[in-house]
Amino acid sequence: MKDKYKTLVAGGDMRQVYCALRLSEEYDTSIIGFDDEFIDDDISIRSAVLSEGESFDCIVLPVIPIGEDGMLNSPCSAVSIDPLSISRTLRPGGVIFAGKVDERLRKIFPGYEICDYLVREELSLKNAIPTAEGAVQLALEELPVTLNGLSVLIVGMGRIGTALAEILKGFGADVTAAVRNESGAAKARIHGIKSVYTAKAGSDYGLVFNTVPSLVFDREKLSAFGAKTLFIDLASKPGGIDFDAARELGIKAIWALGLPGKTAPVTSGEIIAESILEVLGERSGGDA
Amino acid sequence: MKDKYKTLVAGGDMRQVYCALRLSEEYDTSIIGFDDEFIDDDISIRSAVLSEGESFDCIVLPVIPIGEDGMLNSPCSAVSIDPLSISRTLRPGGVIFAGKVDERLRKIFPGYEICDYLVREELSLKNAIPTAEGAVQLALEELPVTLNGLSVLIVGMGRIGTALAEILKGFGADVTAAVRNESGAAKARIHGIKSVYTAKAGSDYGLVFNTVPSLVFDREKLSAFGAKTLFIDLASKPGGIDFDAARELGIKAIWALGLPGKTAPVTSGEIIAESILEVLGERSGGDA
Amino acid sequence: MKDKYKTLVAGGDMRQVYCALRLSEEYDTSIIGFDDEFIDDDISIRSAVLSEGESFDCIVLPVIPIGEDGMLNSPCSAVSIDPLSISRTLRPGGVIFAGKVDERLRKIFPGYEICDYLVREELSLKNAIPTAEGAVQLALEELPVTLNGLSVLIVGMGRIGTALAEILKGFGADVTAAVRNESGAAKARIHGIKSVYTAKAGSDYGLVFNTVPSLVFDREKLSAFGAKTLFIDLASKPGGIDFDAARELGIKAIWALGLPGKTAPVTSGEIIAESILEVLGERSGGDA
Amino acid sequence: MKDKYKTLVAGGDMRQVYCALRLSEEYDTSIIGFDDEFIDDDISIRSAVLSEGESFDCIVLPVIPIGEDGMLNSPCSAVSIDPLSISRTLRPGGVIFAGKVDERLRKIFPGYEICDYLVREELSLKNAIPTAEGAVQLALEELPVTLNGLSVLIVGMGRIGTALAEILKGFGADVTAAVRNESGAAKARIHGIKSVYTAKAGSDYGLVFNTVPSLVFDREKLSAFGAKTLFIDLASKPGGIDFDAARELGIKAIWALGLPGKTAPVTSGEIIAESILEVLGERSGGDA
Repeated sequence: MKDKYKTLVAGGDMRQVYCALRLSEEYDTSIIGFDDEFIDDDISIRSAVLSEGESFDCIVLPVIPIGEDGMLNSPCSAVSIDPLSISRTLRPGGVIFAGKVDERLRKIFPGYEICDYLVREELSLKNAIPTAEGAVQLALEELPVTLNGLSVLIVGMGRIGTALAEILKGFGADVTAAVRNESGAAKARIHGIKSVYTAKAGSDYGLVFNTVPSLVFDREKLSAFGAKTLFIDLASKPGGIDFDAARELGIKAIWALGLPGKTAPVTSGEIIAESILEVLGERSGGDA
Repeated sequence: MKDKYKTLVAGGDMRQVYCALRLSEEYDTSIIGFDDEFIDDDISIRSAVLSEGESFDCIVLPVIPIGEDGMLNSPCSAVSIDPLSISRTLRPGGVIFAGKVDERLRKIFPGYEICDYLVREELSLKNAIPTAEGAVQLALEELPVTLNGLSVLIVGMGRIGTALAEILKGFGADVTAAVRNESGAAKARIHGIKSVYTAKAGSDYGLVFNTVPSLVFDREKLSAFGAKTLFIDLASKPGGIDFDAARELGIKAIWALGLPGKTAPVTSGEIIAESILEVLGERSGGDA
Repeated sequence: MKDKYKTLVAGGDMRQVYCALRLSEEYDTSIIGFDDEFIDDDISIRSAVLSEGESFDCIVLPVIPIGEDGMLNSPCSAVSIDPLSISRTLRPGGVIFAGKVDERLRKIFPGYEICDYLVREELSLKNAIPTAEGAVQLALEELPVTLNGLSVLIVGMGRIGTALAEILKGFGADVTAAVRNESGAAKARIHGIKSVYTAKAGSDYGLVFNTVPSLVFDREKLSAFGAKTLFIDLASKPGGIDFDAARELGIKAIWALGLPGKTAPVTSGEIIAESILEVLGERSGGDA
Repeated sequence: MKDKYKTLVAGGDMRQVYCALRLSEEYDTSIIGFDDEFIDDDISIRSAVLSEGESFDCIVLPVIPIGEDGMLNSPCSAVSIDPLSISRTLRPGGVIFAGKVDERLRKIFPGYEICDYLVREELSLKNAIPTAEGAVQLALEELPVTLNGLSVLIVGMGRIGTALAEILKGFGADVTAAVRNESGAAKARIHGIKSVYTAKAGSDYGLVFNTVPSLVFDREKLSAFGAKTLFIDLASKPGGIDFDAARELGIKAIWALGLPGKTAPVTSGEIIAESILEVLGERSGGDA
């Protein structure tokens, strides 16, 4: 089994080291793009040397694979790594795993199968957990009051909103979900929390988590809130808060991106590995 | 507002009375198909008389609208009611709400808009709650042990499985979800419970809830379980358990259908009413 | 080990059978006071015959050991059993376990050590669980609405109040504890629920559990509530509700006594057995 | 009402500011021992000047009132404050509130009533919440894995252990309580978590919280654990972990003392104020 997919994990942050460690339980796995100081003694994972004749069945790239400079995104390596030096080691018929797959990446690995692990449903679901935990950690660090008894608004009852609700209930927070329709209200009900339509949500909350990737809290909406409310935005790309307006209004708002890798690199790396194993299992016709 | 939709709730079980009661808060609402004995004194809802010239904007029929005999399904009425006598009172452009809309129903209300409230997502989500509560009530009644500390298997992590998980965690049960893939496993994780692939689930459970509408527990699978395990099947139509095999093997298995109407008629009636109000609100261009 | 304490379980309801079954895992155990129809085929427990020369180290009597008629309390036996016929089989230095130990019992077993298992703290704590589960089962059976979203008042944050709070939170009920002082309020806070001083509690609850054994709901207090509120009283002896007043006011009130034995006889019997084993372990100098 | 108890809050950390703020809602309250930089603009609380003739009914001192140097413990003041200058302002019959009341303090306020708020049961109960939240924050900060799915051991099921259990269940951690006897086991059961006798607890935990103030984890016990386990000790005075041994064994162990004041100064200050109000209410014959 170990020989089935000879794997190279190349570049990325600490998540990728733990991803490699998990993959190495199943397949012959090595890493590149991590200087010694980043590899603890108790992490037994082989460093690859991209010598002539070295060849891999599977290459795992980071969530953001290629940097602005066209080099491999490898923040844990002092030297730059040319992605072409990686691509040369992939045997014909091999497979690449990466987040955010774009044209640039396709040109580096022409004709190869490239799997975007970020679009896997189970990865998004699992990542909701480190994201929610990281967001709650931020709230605990920033707030001078306990979460117990605090009025908390969660905007959106998707994966992350649900994960947040579960955690905050345990703290004894007074949780309300801001929802868009009756289906959202019903989801809140199943999770044992109250709900309000987002447009009608008041401002009497000590903590607001946004999970919806569109401008929910514009200047007007923000101006109803006081300085005692902490906003934590977990939405990607456009984000859900007008941060300039928040600053001017003296409202503390944090845009917390990439939490899984920051607050729980081991778990996040294992989540990526599990998705890769799932895909490789499907390819082999296995029932992982 | 009250005049906007003059509404008739016709037939069905007690749910429909509470549905009517909720609708009457918004619109002029009357009922037909309920003998006096079914209407408590504290339920102030007008009984309709289908006289000449009476006309409604909106007619609400039961979950199963028409019986085998072609008459209105009205178990709470001693006399049969011809659905045509109902349809005659619907004004042109009026709307019908019913569960399980079929050709027969369309013939009775030709050319009218018929809305099947059972296909509304928010209704399915909300109904998961009385279904899960009713299932847990059954378990409490049947089992000679406490749910606290009991090993419970929930097959399926959809709406009902999720609702069950939330309740059973509160009891301190030792809950495992049987899932089909990594997405199911991730959902279980978000809800703080363990998971196992259905095909690999063992038999060491004191209580099994099935929510998947396909044969999960066939004779072979059942034969691994002992007489101490209680099976409660919440799946519709084909069901998920071979009940004949269960009987022969001495395993207690209950097929619990239609729980919302049986165990929580008030809540279930209100859920139907809320969906109807949602639809009528959408028609009016309102943002209910 | 098995020989250490030859044990007789005499009389009582089904709990005692399961108590005997649990004890038989550790010691040579037999029962008396149960006709064949009460003993399922899969319960392998020996029936004792109180012949000449039979002698036990340990006798386990029911929660209420002696009936009004002075005979052994044995509702599962068609014939009466004289407790003296039991006491004769106890060897010198043997020990009796019973609930509610009084003078009458002491006369039947003169000079013997009698242990009242009902006063054991761990038994009271453990019994809170089947009591709370039984109370919630009653509520599910009686109420036409779901517990989800229901306003519930729990009077008292002791063992049973705490157990109820844990379960009801899982249902997504809106739980408030009625407490006597700030310590009670703090306990509610730790368990993530709201609190109110009992004297100031309003009447806007759909369900009220009383756990305090003194008259909390007298006629005046009850008269503030409507017919939609269900009262379940779990308090022993005097109870906390004026049931006559409740009846006259048309308020549904249930005095639910002895729930552990009724709703979860297996668990309740095991709880008694565990306390007995604990005591016997302490006697042996063991650290059970 | 405001005039009833003219109050001075003297010294201490930020908790005392928020304590004063809460007291000022009920009584005429001023503070001393806080330089301007510590008082946010939105905190409207009067600074006292201890002029001739100034007199208070009630003086509130910090959790640790007097420093090693015999001066008032006032870390937020650049100048030292002699406690005698405070005591002179207390009117005859006035009352002092302080934590850790000792002989030294009694000499400074001879003949006055001194109330130790730390011994109030409701304060200990309420403080369990910021303590548990602070401990969980530490765990989130230190661990590279999620709490979800992590094996966590909580030693002791008292106030703090219970508060921790409630929070950690919400995270979906796999929680076990280490208990001393069957009563502890029963408490764990009521809170829906597993238990093990402390002496028999294994080492397969990723996170251990100790709440018991005696040496639970000596060198021998610690040596069974690996470097992946994080220990957080919440026990006062002797603590429950041999920290020297932990360091030598390469095990990360944190002794987290005084968490309420550090992680939730607002809530902690309000908790002290609530206890003071409770005592003053009792003195007035009120039923606060």
